[in-house]
Amino acid sequence: MRAAIFRNGEIVVDALPEPEPSAGQVVVKTLACGICGSDLHARKHAHRMVELARHFPGRKPMDLARDVVFGHEFCCEILDYGPGTPRRLKPGTLVCSLPALLTPEGPKAIGYSNDNIGGYAERMLLSEALLLEVPNGLAAEHAALTEPLAVGVHAVAKANVRGDEVPLVIGCGPVGLAVIAALKIKGLHPIVAADYSPARRALAEKLGADIVVDPARTQAFATWAEHAAMSREQQAARPAMQAWLPALKPALIFECVGIPGLIQQVFEGAPRDARIVVVGVCMETDRAEPMLGIMKELNVQYVLGYTPEEFAHSLGLIAEGEVDAASMVTATVGIEGVAGAFADLANPERHTKIIVEPWR
Amino acid sequence: MRAAIFRNGEIVVDALPEPEPSAGQVVVKTLACGICGSDLHARKHAHRMVELARHFPGRKPMDLARDVVFGHEFCCEILDYGPGTPRRLKPGTLVCSLPALLTPEGPKAIGYSNDNIGGYAERMLLSEALLLEVPNGLAAEHAALTEPLAVGVHAVAKANVRGDEVPLVIGCGPVGLAVIAALKIKGLHPIVAADYSPARRALAEKLGADIVVDPARTQAFATWAEHAAMSREQQAARPAMQAWLPALKPALIFECVGIPGLIQQVFEGAPRDARIVVVGVCMETDRAEPMLGIMKELNVQYVLGYTPEEFAHSLGLIAEGEVDAASMVTATVGIEGVAGAFADLANPERHTKIIVEPWR
Repeated sequence: MRAAIFRNGEIVVDALPEPEPSAGQVVVKTLACGICGSDLHARKHAHRMVELARHFPGRKPMDLARDVVFGHEFCCEILDYGPGTPRRLKPGTLVCSLPALLTPEGPKAIGYSNDNIGGYAERMLLSEALLLEVPNGLAAEHAALTEPLAVGVHAVAKANVRGDEVPLVIGCGPVGLAVIAALKIKGLHPIVAADYSPARRALAEKLGADIVVDPARTQAFATWAEHAAMSREQQAARPAMQAWLPALKPALIFECVGIPGLIQQVFEGAPRDARIVVVGVCMETDRAEPMLGIMKELNVQYVLGYTPEEFAHSLGLIAEGEVDAASMVTATVGIEGVAGAFADLANPERHTKIIVEPWR
Repeated sequence: MRAAIFRNGEIVVDALPEPEPSAGQVVVKTLACGICGSDLHARKHAHRMVELARHFPGRKPMDLARDVVFGHEFCCEILDYGPGTPRRLKPGTLVCSLPALLTPEGPKAIGYSNDNIGGYAERMLLSEALLLEVPNGLAAEHAALTEPLAVGVHAVAKANVRGDEVPLVIGCGPVGLAVIAALKIKGLHPIVAADYSPARRALAEKLGADIVVDPARTQAFATWAEHAAMSREQQAARPAMQAWLPALKPALIFECVGIPGLIQQVFEGAPRDARIVVVGVCMETDRAEPMLGIMKELNVQYVLGYTPEEFAHSLGLIAEGEVDAASMVTATVGIEGVAGAFADLANPERHTKIIVEPWR
């Protein structure tokens, strides 16, 4: 079968052996697989990923001398079952799955592994126990958005929303957009979102942002503060020693960019007692002034991934039309188009989410 | 009156004019004032403190060309009242106070200010509204420990303890010891504490640590893990996808050192989902790998200071003998001894808390 392979730091198209299902596994045809910002990061910082894996004894790092097939945002069609499978769903059924294979040693990642190939290949293996049937006749290229939406749903869940916060989403790439969609479902308003790209600001509004900010023109935290003023009752209820502080509702800031220096920018701009959820994946060493965190008593929650429940919930949200995930898709490509798509995604005006259709 | 003054980067003894109370203020005789690690930091990094103040528009930075009198952990005796004071307590009464003066523009810090002199002087000004009478005939040099204890009480309050966590306290200087005392009161066990100094480990045990670790001999996180094993019931209650993770109770880590690199060490050693409370004050730019925070979904809560309620509660804890704060005091000095005490505090074997008695 054909695949777009990460080999010697580049994405190349080549043939790979057909995958053979072990016990509990299913062979599926990859119908659609989104290109994730993490894949772009992984191509650029593969050695860092390997180096960081040493902190996680259970995790087998990628061997960069061998092939890796990326792709962890997929929707597939069941082709055939391996041994020891209850065959719950018929061949031909459309399914999504967490990007993991269940093994006796625990779940193993699909997509950043030499052994478990990802969705940039014509066929792949999944664990039957993790299959979720795609409901409502949802198109594969939209069901493939389950994974990135789940990232936003999880980030908002980890934020422990109380209901009185005013959120600020920094960065409106796929991660920021998923956070905005999840915040809208949570009913938190107004949602303030910032991005340098007009196209992404327009998408942010489509997915639920109430106020969008162009940081080149306006300071995002200043705009946030304009929309976070306490009510007169809230001001009156404050302790006397806090009465001199700016009368602002609690800040809930989602960092959805993931480049060095961003957390320091947030530390500088954030109001006192802000909670910061770091959803953007920064693979490089970062520098910050802890004193700013201390003097403002900031809270930083780093997040990654999602639970199986959040993943299933996200598929439901798309299938029921609660989230217009489809609006994120700006292009579809075949296997030959993956390398070019990696390059194209650098331009936020042109692209947000590119879907790979390996069967094309 | 005489004072130990921060002047041109050094601590010198000189005469200052007698303080004159404004409306709502009280003149007090400083009976005892602890030397805080922040004072040592402030002497070394005064320019950084001034620079950081630009992020806080309401805060007037110190003018380092002018005198500053440090000292914010004090117990005093009321001498006389200024105008517009209800004179609630008799002259001669022993009092503690938050290190702040109430002004029409909000509270202003005592001790890191050109205007509001701190406790390393014979006399100082306090706001009557903030005075707390020292109860139970508690000695001034022990009542002066209210402030550092309140730092620990606040840090533990900000940790939102649920009751199932196993705490690890890194660094057993006065801040770490206060955290240990506050954790003991919270009833959280076992309390694991790490410090390179045998004297400080002994103090940690005295104040409530159940297990102490010498990081030169044993990895603190490994010792923590030995004492954090889940019960069989807790293991059985875990979701299937987590069953392969180490069966450890939630980690609650208090960083009480405050030097660059420490947070990165904690990021490396911490287990998944750990909550980290940063109590140590690091005034320098710090570097860390955000990817470790992300992959472990760590939570970092920076803390500073305390509420008026926590401060009053801390005085009560000492007065009622709930916390043996007195065991932290390793020396008392007069005003002439302040400069030497700053140097002596560098040796954790010799000293933990030195109390200044300006009347000596």
